[in-house]
Parts: sequence; C-alpha cells; structure tokens
Amino acid sequence: MVCDPASFEEAQGIADNLKNRRAVIINLEKAEQGQARRIVDFISGTTFALGGNMQKVGQGIFLFVPSSIDIANESGREAKEKSIFPWVKSE
Amino acid sequence: MVCDPASFEEAQGIADNLKNRRAVIINLEKAEQGQARRIVDFISGTTFALGGNMQKVGQGIFLFVPSSIDIANESGREAKEKSIFPWVKSE
Repeated sequence: MVCDPASFEEAQGIADNLKNRRAVIINLEKAEQGQARRIVDFISGTTFALGGNMQKVGQGIFLFVPSSIDIANESGREAKEKSIFPWVKSE
Repeated sequence: MVCDPASFEEAQGIADNLKNRRAVIINLEKAEQGQARRIVDFISGTTFALGGNMQKVGQGIFLFVPSSIDIANESGREAKEKSIFPWVKSE
C-alpha cells in the first residue's frame, strides 16, 4: 500500500495497515515537516511493537513492513541486518 | 514502571516494557520539548499497535498501558471509553 498523508491525523489509519500485516510505503511530500516527523515517529513506534522493519526509500519516502516481510536492498543484504532505527546507538 | 527520559534515543527501551506487557509512566520534565513530542509519538504508535491505552496524568506526565490493563479515572469510568488518541476526530 502506498499513501501520502498530509497530517498526523492520518497516522492511525496507516498503522492499521501494518497491524493487518500489510507493508506500507509512505510518501511525505504533502506533509509539512513537523507533521512528517510526527507521522514517521508514530509509525516507527507501531513498527517496533510489531517487530517489523523500516527503510528510507528516497527523500521523504519510507517503507515500513510488519515482521513477516524482509526488506532486501541493492547489495542483496537484508535491511534488518543493519540498525533498523538509526537513533539507537549500536552496542 | 516509571521513567524520565531525556532524549528520543530512550524511546525504544520504554517501548520494550510495553511489548513485555508492563504499564509505563513517562515523566518528560527532563526532556526538551521537541524530544518529548517525539517520545510520546513513538510510544503512542507502540501502544496503538498493542491495542493499549494512554492517559495524560499531569503536565508532561503520561501513563501508557498495554492492552491487558484498563485505566480507571476519577469518575470511575474507564479511560478507554473516551477517545484514546486525542488527535483522532470522533466519528
């Protein structure tokens, strides 16, 4: 599913898709910067709870997947081998 | 569990408690406003994924509970009867 939310109020609807085990691509070009940050933080929290993964696809475009799906990147390694959430310091 | 995070980097550790079915009280007085917003958004996303509830306890103090626990407020009604996430318009 691809979505392009403009405001944080749309975050729960997007999170419902993840809860229902659907991968979601979020394009944030319609969202003001503060709203975009809030959407990504909320959906990141949802994804973390579900044991899923997130990956930045491009400028303002993010892929979130529930736990049942792996993300393969260009180099063939799975994204989950890397730090999923960049704000967490590596151990 | 009561925690008083100062930065967003602590959000995942808090979310782990919710995933492990522990209620969490977050005191945000140590956190700068932008960081506080990010923490609450992330933990709200986690709580939403888990089917839990959140409630503002005081200025900068929030209670988050996983789905297995109800929140009773002063009037005796359960908090889950109200809109859990205030940014969602009622239907």
